[in-house]
Amino acid sequence: MLTYNFENIDGPIYEYLYKCIKDDILSGVLKPEEKLPSKRTFARNNGISTITIQNAYDQLIAEGYIYTVERKGYFVSNLHVVRENKTVSYDIQIPKTKEYKYDFAYNKMNTDNFPFSIWAKLGREVLSEKKEGLMQIAPGGGLMELRVAIAKHLQSFRGMAVDPNQIVVGAGTEYLYGVLVQLLGRNKIYAIENPGYKKLIKIYEQYEVNPKYITLDEQGVTLDSLKKTKAEIAHISPNHHFPTGIITPVSRRYELLSWANEEDGRYILEDDYDSEFRYNGKPLPTLFSIDGCEKVIYINTFSKSLTPTIRVSYMVLPVHLANKMYDKFSFQSCTVSNFEQYILAEFINRGYFEKHINRMRLYYARKRKQVISCLRQSVIKDYCEIIESNAGLHFILKINTSVSDETMKQRLEENGLHINALSDYYMNNHHVREHMFILDYSNIQIEQLAEACDVIYQCIT
Amino acid sequence: MLTYNFENIDGPIYEYLYKCIKDDILSGVLKPEEKLPSKRTFARNNGISTITIQNAYDQLIAEGYIYTVERKGYFVSNLHVVRENKTVSYDIQIPKTKEYKYDFAYNKMNTDNFPFSIWAKLGREVLSEKKEGLMQIAPGGGLMELRVAIAKHLQSFRGMAVDPNQIVVGAGTEYLYGVLVQLLGRNKIYAIENPGYKKLIKIYEQYEVNPKYITLDEQGVTLDSLKKTKAEIAHISPNHHFPTGIITPVSRRYELLSWANEEDGRYILEDDYDSEFRYNGKPLPTLFSIDGCEKVIYINTFSKSLTPTIRVSYMVLPVHLANKMYDKFSFQSCTVSNFEQYILAEFINRGYFEKHINRMRLYYARKRKQVISCLRQSVIKDYCEIIESNAGLHFILKINTSVSDETMKQRLEENGLHINALSDYYMNNHHVREHMFILDYSNIQIEQLAEACDVIYQCIT
Repeated sequence: MLTYNFENIDGPIYEYLYKCIKDDILSGVLKPEEKLPSKRTFARNNGISTITIQNAYDQLIAEGYIYTVERKGYFVSNLHVVRENKTVSYDIQIPKTKEYKYDFAYNKMNTDNFPFSIWAKLGREVLSEKKEGLMQIAPGGGLMELRVAIAKHLQSFRGMAVDPNQIVVGAGTEYLYGVLVQLLGRNKIYAIENPGYKKLIKIYEQYEVNPKYITLDEQGVTLDSLKKTKAEIAHISPNHHFPTGIITPVSRRYELLSWANEEDGRYILEDDYDSEFRYNGKPLPTLFSIDGCEKVIYINTFSKSLTPTIRVSYMVLPVHLANKMYDKFSFQSCTVSNFEQYILAEFINRGYFEKHINRMRLYYARKRKQVISCLRQSVIKDYCEIIESNAGLHFILKINTSVSDETMKQRLEENGLHINALSDYYMNNHHVREHMFILDYSNIQIEQLAEACDVIYQCIT
Repeated sequence: MLTYNFENIDGPIYEYLYKCIKDDILSGVLKPEEKLPSKRTFARNNGISTITIQNAYDQLIAEGYIYTVERKGYFVSNLHVVRENKTVSYDIQIPKTKEYKYDFAYNKMNTDNFPFSIWAKLGREVLSEKKEGLMQIAPGGGLMELRVAIAKHLQSFRGMAVDPNQIVVGAGTEYLYGVLVQLLGRNKIYAIENPGYKKLIKIYEQYEVNPKYITLDEQGVTLDSLKKTKAEIAHISPNHHFPTGIITPVSRRYELLSWANEEDGRYILEDDYDSEFRYNGKPLPTLFSIDGCEKVIYINTFSKSLTPTIRVSYMVLPVHLANKMYDKFSFQSCTVSNFEQYILAEFINRGYFEKHINRMRLYYARKRKQVISCLRQSVIKDYCEIIESNAGLHFILKINTSVSDETMKQRLEENGLHINALSDYYMNNHHVREHMFILDYSNIQIEQLAEACDVIYQCIT
């Protein structure tokens, strides 16, 4: 008869009982298909209540250790798989992530720069005050609280007049690009900037779109090149191009809107991913805010201004596309958790987001000065030229060398230095400008930079 | 000369100054293109430091209220859009969400049933101890911590031996279905259960897949019907079918695996969305755990076992598909925030998830008894038959009436009652069984149910 000792146990009795029986099953003391005592017998023999046994048996049933046969009783399962904590490992080839001593290509956010205590405070409040809302499935476009907050932010920061119902919140811009391709149609011609964010090719290709390339001049994408692509959708970053840093001037913006209005079905996807950190120059209106004919889709993210690990981005659709979204795709579930959405909404509404951006702007400005000063005093000061952009968190380092970018990068990597060249961002090999390297300074450690300059110096000749 | 009063102000001086200037710009006191004082003049006239002015000017620049011209100074911007808090509203047709007095179709989770205080505690810990990790971009398949926790859970709860690298975490199962279509190919023939989860049709169609339908018998999908579809991918829920509640017995499971192994390129997508709440009967091995030839993709979610608003689901890929994922799609970013992933990993690792499931199982068991008892004492007791399934959180209410489902639902809706009929889940009109209604009892309020029974009684004849 199955008996256990119930003296001096911690926690609920049924849990202890459940563990005892489970251990006996795993160790073989109780054999497969063996019949367990009835609840009444067990209770009587062990001096505990039948409810306690019921709870223990229920848990064992749920986990598959025992099963019940109607009017017959409880039996030990025949376990085919060992259930002990055994790590399973198969031959899966994970891509190797290489570690570098000086990594200027991958820009990890500094923990000092995330407002952890405010985030924690808002998290506590949300969990205690928004319980109902946290259990309510969000609308596909995102919680109204967050969309209203974003609309207000866009109004004060970018001068954009946005109805919260135009906003669609999603778990990252890649996800939103996919939603857009569904909304606009896969069979349209899409064009992206060259040079530009190369990952876009892979992102579009997974949706079976093969994007065309638009070349740039010193003002941004050129109309000639855009027209040559025969694109219907132009995916561009006029407010701050990566990696060249070009900010498209107003006259060119109007030309682009003119292009968009020449034909039905043309759209401009205005990708505005890090415009919060502009330093000087007259603020330029976004294409979205000067678009009178519903041709512009505006897309932005909290990845740069807050952190990429929060996974919240949003797009603002022109009215007729918002209506199409609600008409055809309202079944889609929102991909961001309610919890994050509520915290973010409060973060914006209480002015913390604005304060954070300003704080970061000052921080980045200081960092930028430090980095420039360091470079200007380093051993490579006579071999490099800093080409600054008016916005964003990087500049282009033009290095006076005849070594090709490919060789340069190889030599640098052999010395533990990882940096991207401008030429890496060209989609094909046309018009590639060599000897230009992208230096994202936002989280550089100055001591590391000085050492890295020595490394670069050695690789130059 | 611009002067402000700096006595008795709260907070940083530069912020106050920024607000004063901004207000003067918005109200028109400072006119567009008007030149602002130099920093030195301003500082001198107002008795504050130039750094303070710099900070205020910087913030105004960032927000576009003023701009700087090199060697000339600071100027007021020409604002085209009013920046005051003005709610914008356009003519966007949001689908109306109808409110019902008795809503038995939409099952909102009860706030009492979510472990808020534990979640808050874990959130605090994560924010204070995982700062570095929170700033580090997660691997595309999800944070290792969470994948390891899920693998351990699957081992103890489902007897599945899983390498964490087989797991892909995503923001909802809809998102993961899309990833699978990319991985397996859009040009394959997919088949889904009929009756079944009708939203699947729309989800697949957005990826331009038109799924075929497999009919069921009392054991689940039939091999005949599956073969007739000529499907290459069978998307099924053998562990608990919704809405019929059928649990596919072992013999049929082996037949399905036999089908999958007849041809290359065939797969079974085992959709296991609420198997944690089984009550009796021998636990059956998942298809995944008896699949010796890498034919089964297992997919599950925390939506049912925890809450749909957390937006975390996962799939377990057979090894060769995991390799394909890493080879071809490693560029994809994870769609779940690090924060949620860390909390969930701790929640699972410390046993809270297991406790939660057990607690919910007891709660649902009690609820089920209450609901059955209520129905058996209600006015419709002689007009309905409760067809229970062995798992899941609903049963089928067979109502003795000759009224068609369509008319019945209409009558019920006119009386504020919303309930789904089994016939709603048929993809087409073949073999539809009428007069069966889906009663999700998990969060029903008993008082409401009693009243609802009166309403049903009135609508029966």
